[in-house]
Amino acid sequence: MLFSSLLQCTREQEGTTQRYRNATSALGTNQTSGTGAPLAHPIANVAVDHDHRMLRVCWEGGEVEVFPFVWLKDNCRCSSCYHAVSHSRLILMEDIDLEAKPTNAKMVGGGQQVEVVWQDGHRSTYGAEWLRLRGFSEENRRVRESSFRLARKYWGSESLEKVPEALFQELLTDDAALLGWLRQLEVFGFVKVNGAPVETGQVRRLAERIAFIRKTHYGEDFSVKAKLDPSNVAYLNGPLQLHADLPYYEYKPGVQFIHCVVQYEGVGGDTQVTDAVHVAHQLQQAHPEHYRVLTDTPVDWFDIGTDENMEFHKLLRLPMICTDKNGEIRRINLSQPQRNSHFSVPVGEVAAWYAALVAYHRLLADPQYCLQFKMIPGTILTFDNLRIVHGRTGYLSGQGERHVEGCYVDWDEVRSRRRVLESKLEPDHS
Amino acid sequence: MLFSSLLQCTREQEGTTQRYRNATSALGTNQTSGTGAPLAHPIANVAVDHDHRMLRVCWEGGEVEVFPFVWLKDNCRCSSCYHAVSHSRLILMEDIDLEAKPTNAKMVGGGQQVEVVWQDGHRSTYGAEWLRLRGFSEENRRVRESSFRLARKYWGSESLEKVPEALFQELLTDDAALLGWLRQLEVFGFVKVNGAPVETGQVRRLAERIAFIRKTHYGEDFSVKAKLDPSNVAYLNGPLQLHADLPYYEYKPGVQFIHCVVQYEGVGGDTQVTDAVHVAHQLQQAHPEHYRVLTDTPVDWFDIGTDENMEFHKLLRLPMICTDKNGEIRRINLSQPQRNSHFSVPVGEVAAWYAALVAYHRLLADPQYCLQFKMIPGTILTFDNLRIVHGRTGYLSGQGERHVEGCYVDWDEVRSRRRVLESKLEPDHS
Repeated sequence: MLFSSLLQCTREQEGTTQRYRNATSALGTNQTSGTGAPLAHPIANVAVDHDHRMLRVCWEGGEVEVFPFVWLKDNCRCSSCYHAVSHSRLILMEDIDLEAKPTNAKMVGGGQQVEVVWQDGHRSTYGAEWLRLRGFSEENRRVRESSFRLARKYWGSESLEKVPEALFQELLTDDAALLGWLRQLEVFGFVKVNGAPVETGQVRRLAERIAFIRKTHYGEDFSVKAKLDPSNVAYLNGPLQLHADLPYYEYKPGVQFIHCVVQYEGVGGDTQVTDAVHVAHQLQQAHPEHYRVLTDTPVDWFDIGTDENMEFHKLLRLPMICTDKNGEIRRINLSQPQRNSHFSVPVGEVAAWYAALVAYHRLLADPQYCLQFKMIPGTILTFDNLRIVHGRTGYLSGQGERHVEGCYVDWDEVRSRRRVLESKLEPDHS
Repeated sequence: MLFSSLLQCTREQEGTTQRYRNATSALGTNQTSGTGAPLAHPIANVAVDHDHRMLRVCWEGGEVEVFPFVWLKDNCRCSSCYHAVSHSRLILMEDIDLEAKPTNAKMVGGGQQVEVVWQDGHRSTYGAEWLRLRGFSEENRRVRESSFRLARKYWGSESLEKVPEALFQELLTDDAALLGWLRQLEVFGFVKVNGAPVETGQVRRLAERIAFIRKTHYGEDFSVKAKLDPSNVAYLNGPLQLHADLPYYEYKPGVQFIHCVVQYEGVGGDTQVTDAVHVAHQLQQAHPEHYRVLTDTPVDWFDIGTDENMEFHKLLRLPMICTDKNGEIRRINLSQPQRNSHFSVPVGEVAAWYAALVAYHRLLADPQYCLQFKMIPGTILTFDNLRIVHGRTGYLSGQGERHVEGCYVDWDEVRSRRRVLESKLEPDHS
């Protein structure tokens, strides 16, 4: 509001999509468009506003943005202030000049750049497009959101008419297919990968197309089949109720891979998958008090045992539904076996918490939200372990084997790989 | 308050320390004390309170706790409800009985156990000590806190009169020394490990005494020395300002190891270490508005490059000082090179944020908070990357080499290892 008087030019009408294309293509570059072609938006004029300590930039077409002096100085791209190879600011924190002001600022290169001469004699040059992409307007700030994380699309068993699918061999050889898979994982939280060889070692091959496996105390890739004296109930043949893995990890692995190597041929061993964030939203609408209890009540999650010759004793206290400062759900913790008998709440809150859990679980298992199917050998389920809960119906042991192999890759690496692929395959997002 | 009328016995006076000892020794066990000795606290009487749906348990000595029926039923330890080997609840979520009620409850085994017969005929037995440790009173709930995370002790350069130290060889061979080191890491956030061999490969040996290395896009163990065309400014020879590593990782590595293999012999290359959470508290007291700005303003952190033949494009938006719902500081993000030129805040907030950054940095670098010393070869600095900022003064390249090797281990694994060692070395915490 303070700066509305500066908006003297007419605002150009322009869709967000096009702006996003420019924004992402220039994330890793400076001052020129990805193609080297003339810039679409040269600068029409610049003016120094000493009263507000801002540089006013007006593009041809009429859009105006203002840039604080201190930000401009801190982001000088000259070789003594910035190391281009590592994309790193070299200017030191003690050299940030809160009082920096230009003695002169002008358009150069036919409006392709702005040159600022500072009071201390330092000279900075900023590209027109580089500045445009860093405009502080609300629209400009929104444009970049999807580079951080893609917006989720929630689903029940009806709304997810067809589970998103991908082909194993394509993911291994085709970067465009790889990018498509990673995007669907972020958006829907669940993708079936078909056609993997029916032998162990495939989850690792898939993970390494992204980056590397996230290791836990169960190792890197791990096999799930019936075992004697198991360290985890997954290694029994009873039902594995809807759950998210490793709720006791503060840094809970982000994306889970489950490869069906051998399927049990009798009745049972079906896979169940539910979008637990979607169901939490339904619970919030239908029973706001249950939702509040599950987001506010700390629960003790734990796992004690030995695997791969390593003893572990994990322990974490977090609500079942974890929300951020904006109330958005960031993580679901649900695991009946790995919920501790220690429950650290005032005794009067216990019964209400159980009532909320039972209500939430009923919705999670409801066929309108829960997909149930039998995996066939060669399928790899890939899903968001912070959002999706998965389970398996019980089966009889001794009547044929069942063997799945799993591993995890963290969202930090998945999103990083998506951005790398976007820069490579869609430099102009065309 | 609701149940205060149940507190008919006199409360026993008992220190928290002793209670903690019992609590942690019984975390992984059931119903008997670690030593197999008779229980210190047998039960004096039990009563069923149908009005409040609670079991009232009164210990000899007078302490009383009440336990909700639904919790008792959900935590039945019989072999059809609970799998002892994996410490896992087998009772299914759909079988949680919100209406469960006992037809009978009595003391058995001379007050060592309580037996409950449920309306559906199911019979549950609970150990006296097992119940005591799960009491819902405020004191009981507080007792377990330190098993989750140890309380931090904050420090400035004066209050940390002597940096906590450990001996490399002892950590490799002596579990008690190992436990001591892990505790000091949690409490002080910073421990110097002395006497490591002066060759690479030592950080891995140390990490594997805990669990395993946390991998990032820079690999597992990584060398920092002057490089041409570096992917990171750490590989230049200029000053590396106070910073925390990898601020663009949502799952930011928890504990960092830095092993000095070769030290530069000229002037420079000094190490700087500051407790950035302590300094943030000082900022909060002296300049609450600066503190508020740094905890509330989202900052774009990023890293783009190639390392170990893997391209990465990390991006994360988080405040410099990250607080949890209770306002406690959980993570510090500070890295001048890895702060993006994109700054997604309303333009009117930019100048105040820079003023807060400069004020915070001045305190961080102030000799009253910042330790500065020159590492000698064979020293491994180990510190909390969520809390501590570290730096290095510049040095001249071409006048002798400088080579440090680093790696990370996550807090999830460090705390797990601490609990495993506590169970092994201090079964009664004696």
